[in-house]
Amino acid sequence: MFYSYIKLIEFLVKEDGLMDNRPIGIFDSGVGGLTVMREVMEQLPYENIIYLGDTARIPYGSKSEQTIRKYANQCSSFLKSKDVKTIVIACNTASSIALNHVQKNFDLPVIGVIDPGARTAASVTETGRIGVIGTIATINSNAYQTKIMEYLHDAEVIGIPCPLFVPIVEEGWEYSNVAELTAEKYLDELIEHDVDTLVLGCTHYPILRNTIRKVVGPNVKLINPAYETARDLKKLLTESEMLNENYDKPRYEYYASDAPERLRRIGGNFLKKEINNLYEIAIDNL
Amino acid sequence: MFYSYIKLIEFLVKEDGLMDNRPIGIFDSGVGGLTVMREVMEQLPYENIIYLGDTARIPYGSKSEQTIRKYANQCSSFLKSKDVKTIVIACNTASSIALNHVQKNFDLPVIGVIDPGARTAASVTETGRIGVIGTIATINSNAYQTKIMEYLHDAEVIGIPCPLFVPIVEEGWEYSNVAELTAEKYLDELIEHDVDTLVLGCTHYPILRNTIRKVVGPNVKLINPAYETARDLKKLLTESEMLNENYDKPRYEYYASDAPERLRRIGGNFLKKEINNLYEIAIDNL
Repeated sequence: MFYSYIKLIEFLVKEDGLMDNRPIGIFDSGVGGLTVMREVMEQLPYENIIYLGDTARIPYGSKSEQTIRKYANQCSSFLKSKDVKTIVIACNTASSIALNHVQKNFDLPVIGVIDPGARTAASVTETGRIGVIGTIATINSNAYQTKIMEYLHDAEVIGIPCPLFVPIVEEGWEYSNVAELTAEKYLDELIEHDVDTLVLGCTHYPILRNTIRKVVGPNVKLINPAYETARDLKKLLTESEMLNENYDKPRYEYYASDAPERLRRIGGNFLKKEINNLYEIAIDNL
Repeated sequence: MFYSYIKLIEFLVKEDGLMDNRPIGIFDSGVGGLTVMREVMEQLPYENIIYLGDTARIPYGSKSEQTIRKYANQCSSFLKSKDVKTIVIACNTASSIALNHVQKNFDLPVIGVIDPGARTAASVTETGRIGVIGTIATINSNAYQTKIMEYLHDAEVIGIPCPLFVPIVEEGWEYSNVAELTAEKYLDELIEHDVDTLVLGCTHYPILRNTIRKVVGPNVKLINPAYETARDLKKLLTESEMLNENYDKPRYEYYASDAPERLRRIGGNFLKKEINNLYEIAIDNL
């Protein structure tokens, strides 16, 4: 009886748009999206979150577009089955290739990391010369380049794929001479082109931020799409009255499609927080 | 009628053990196994070969053992469907984890790359101090370490995972200062332990051979399991009278479970040969 009252109140409050305690769903091909989750946890500290790392099929970066769309669909289906109120595609590759596809297939708000990063880059650049770094697939997809030019027609955007950055971060070598030399090799062309803004277009790259800063110098604005995405998400939830206004300690759940222990071990460095409530799922069958 | 005679002769010759023109099947999680195929092409220049790169699910290195066994089974089923006479698991991760499993499930000779590399290392070392480098999964599986000690009980084997080597090779940076610094970082411990033999326990590493040689010095024996595996394969086919003694130009076919163009582009550097007869297949359904 008491429970029914609680449920009724919850329902009324929710219908009033004052409270929606359903979790936010976030997925990525692996651990990288945890940098996005971290920003969401900081900016939306009362939201319950479900994170899915599709570690069985990482990296998406070297897969075909058709395959990436299929994977993004399966990840979204899993999150939907957990009754999430919104989906964040916290993977640049999947955002660049599968966002429209997922938005079309699921009847809930879906946001990716490309648009927030691109919009911010277009708004803060002074010279219009913008660099984008990311995986081979993200850069080849031209997603950031195209999106930035939608916001700033005469922008000059240079994309550089940096495939070594991910394993450098996963080795914990972000402050090593290997990281610095690699960054110099990759970023040299951007420095020559005198970009004034640089988008860190891969979820692993914020961890290399200091090394990248050292190489590009103090005057280049570094854009972290994870931060901008969390800002957009907060705006979306606020405007559509979907914030959770239950100020209890939120619940965080983590799912990995393979080798969850690896997610726990490496993920801690991304999340700056211990990973508990971690479960393994079979993603192929979804 | 003429065709029937040919078939009859082929049958008789084959039954006599003088000729078996069925192809050799080789699979790997991606392009790396092409260094094994290259050795097989050199040492067995009349054999037809079918290569399968499971590029849709690369890398195996970060997957669980159960998943790797499933994938190896699916790759072997595909090759079996192409009527291969033998299967080479040209992937250290899959060899270390799934060889017995595949041998049990398929009624044809199956060889991996671990045993040939381990046996050679055990036989050429003088001090008994042997280093093994490979992916995280290969090293953590202890497959080389265990196998070397089967051949040489009192060997002292040190395994070092080198996850940056694969992307360095795939970037074409094998002669760069990044490659050298990375090799120094990884191999330092082996040099300190004064190993006299080093197993290149990942199919990508032979391409870094010169850089590794520079770092470890001229006195360390470098073992390339791809070369040793091709030698074992030649011995196996000779002894079981399964060599193809039709000395026509052999046929090479390549299959990729995703993004075949990437296999063609990067694979050329591994094979030192242009890749034609390349097809895409759906591996999940096997």
